[in-house]
Amino acid sequence: MKINGTPYRSIWRDAASGEVKIIDQRWLPHELRIVPLHSLADFATAIRDMWVRGAPLIGATAAWGVAEEMARDPSDAALQNAWEVLHDTRPTAINLRWALDAMRATLAPLPPDQRAAAARIRAEAICDEDVEINRRIGANGLTLLREIAARKGGGRVNVLTHCNAGWLATVDWGTATSPVYHAVAEGIDVHVYVDETRPRNQGALLTAWEMNSHGVSHDLIVDNAGGHLMQHGEIDIVITGTDRTTARGDVCNKIGTYLKALAAHANGVPFYVALPSPTIDWTVRDGLAEIPIEERSAHEVTHVQGRDPEGRVTEVQISPDGTGARNPAFDVTPAELVTGLITERGICPATTEGMAALFPEFATAAQ
Amino acid sequence: MKINGTPYRSIWRDAASGEVKIIDQRWLPHELRIVPLHSLADFATAIRDMWVRGAPLIGATAAWGVAEEMARDPSDAALQNAWEVLHDTRPTAINLRWALDAMRATLAPLPPDQRAAAARIRAEAICDEDVEINRRIGANGLTLLREIAARKGGGRVNVLTHCNAGWLATVDWGTATSPVYHAVAEGIDVHVYVDETRPRNQGALLTAWEMNSHGVSHDLIVDNAGGHLMQHGEIDIVITGTDRTTARGDVCNKIGTYLKALAAHANGVPFYVALPSPTIDWTVRDGLAEIPIEERSAHEVTHVQGRDPEGRVTEVQISPDGTGARNPAFDVTPAELVTGLITERGICPATTEGMAALFPEFATAAQ
Repeated sequence: MKINGTPYRSIWRDAASGEVKIIDQRWLPHELRIVPLHSLADFATAIRDMWVRGAPLIGATAAWGVAEEMARDPSDAALQNAWEVLHDTRPTAINLRWALDAMRATLAPLPPDQRAAAARIRAEAICDEDVEINRRIGANGLTLLREIAARKGGGRVNVLTHCNAGWLATVDWGTATSPVYHAVAEGIDVHVYVDETRPRNQGALLTAWEMNSHGVSHDLIVDNAGGHLMQHGEIDIVITGTDRTTARGDVCNKIGTYLKALAAHANGVPFYVALPSPTIDWTVRDGLAEIPIEERSAHEVTHVQGRDPEGRVTEVQISPDGTGARNPAFDVTPAELVTGLITERGICPATTEGMAALFPEFATAAQ
Repeated sequence: MKINGTPYRSIWRDAASGEVKIIDQRWLPHELRIVPLHSLADFATAIRDMWVRGAPLIGATAAWGVAEEMARDPSDAALQNAWEVLHDTRPTAINLRWALDAMRATLAPLPPDQRAAAARIRAEAICDEDVEINRRIGANGLTLLREIAARKGGGRVNVLTHCNAGWLATVDWGTATSPVYHAVAEGIDVHVYVDETRPRNQGALLTAWEMNSHGVSHDLIVDNAGGHLMQHGEIDIVITGTDRTTARGDVCNKIGTYLKALAAHANGVPFYVALPSPTIDWTVRDGLAEIPIEERSAHEVTHVQGRDPEGRVTEVQISPDGTGARNPAFDVTPAELVTGLITERGICPATTEGMAALFPEFATAAQ
């Protein structure tokens, strides 16, 4: 999407220099640092140290890492080494594994002297496929925002989102944000309430930066405020992303999503989840019982990162020395609180039947 | 309550020096600064600039401000001036007005040469009354924690609280925390999950400090985490404070309280609100429709205060330049989500009938 009028992706091969470039997201929203990645070590560092994050972008970065390594050394040994080095960066990321396997499947059968060119084509294709999936999610979700705008006679459509399910987590468009960008492009008066999303503040750091850079009307709110706004009719629709969706429509997403779903349900506000269908886990049904929730470091809770009065990006401790913290990173929103799932194929109810209608080939396998 | 083994109140007259002292709460949890207040200007500054906060403590501080001024100049003009200067510090604080009126009603009929002594006695009594109300709230709430402990066969009783309804907001004990301190004194194994409470972080800054200083087992959590913990049976009871309770039991409290009440209701977790009965507003029934909610500065949302790596208390900006914020400071939890109200007279259901049974003299007037 746009940064002050110029279209960007979150990763791209620069036509002039031939370099693969990313936005080093660690410095957002305070600085826009665009950096080239050259060596395999560069790509591994960028993924491991979270210069890039978001499952689709991690996959795309790994694909480009393999491609750039093939340009340097297209041997079998180098291909296997690239797979291993990149896979070890964040071993639990499903997209990372998927992208690395896809690259290897394409490249391994080829003679080494054809691998560099083929690898760049495949990496580019992985990126383009991600962009297309998210574009379709947005086109599908756009219909919901159009309906609200029509019902309000062109009045402002107020969207609440949680965490960053934006273009910075994908290659472009994002998932939850894609309908918003589509609505803006169509001239719909849309306003986004951005949940701060403690403890890591992805809303304040990344989603707000996206909205601000693209010129989308928005306000930052604390995670505590969404219920109150819904009680007073100030939210027309909630759209979030998801890390994992079960075969019956339970949604595992950033901690706090569940609280917003409860408030939406209590106040008659539609609650939609935007997702690329590969993130549906057809082997799991009961998200609350079956999905293990990662507990992260207490430090994320006791400290907050930001820019100090001297302009330095630093972190401050908010709690007393001696106070510990619990830090579950995700929660599960039961399907009955989810109005619908916005996918690249269309929108469906968050039910076994609704999902089966849209994805018959997978749903059958899951029965 | 205790700070590392030594009992404290949040305001007291030092027997040795004769000075009135407070904890300058702006530096918590990073520094414990105890400061004497001498002049009327000192007291006004302490209230206006939030060295002290919390309705009961503001009232107590104003009472001591009048008392100390009477020791300096007991004239009618000085009494009236003290009332006005202190009232102007935070004019919307109900307890402030109440305490100033109480002091004036006691002092105005007296000859000036008796005012200094009478004022100290009255200020001390206002503090002691607050302590006694909160002690009773705790003794009443303790019965709930005892029941849970018994049901769990002595297993850990997990309490969730939001914001700071602790002794730092009152003269001692606090409201929501008073049952916890009582339970600890009785040897019940109690653990407190402390909501951070963005945007001003009263949970992280003050409640966590209280728990840590008194030696109460606790963990800080982000405001997003409580729903997940309740889904997994990790919270036995929620106890919060309130700024204002309506005659039918709607509860106006710090923003985000409503989201925890929704989660408690959805997960069968009892949700109690601890309050001194003078904070019940018998003239209001429908809290959502009738209570105006203060919108505070965007700066509180876009910035976070804490201690930087060099040990300085500072604030950091978390959002991009150009991003605005909405900042409603309170929300209203409808009575049907409130299991009960813990008052100095006992515990009652959050219903018109339940409140009328406990407070017949007020409830009759409100019909």
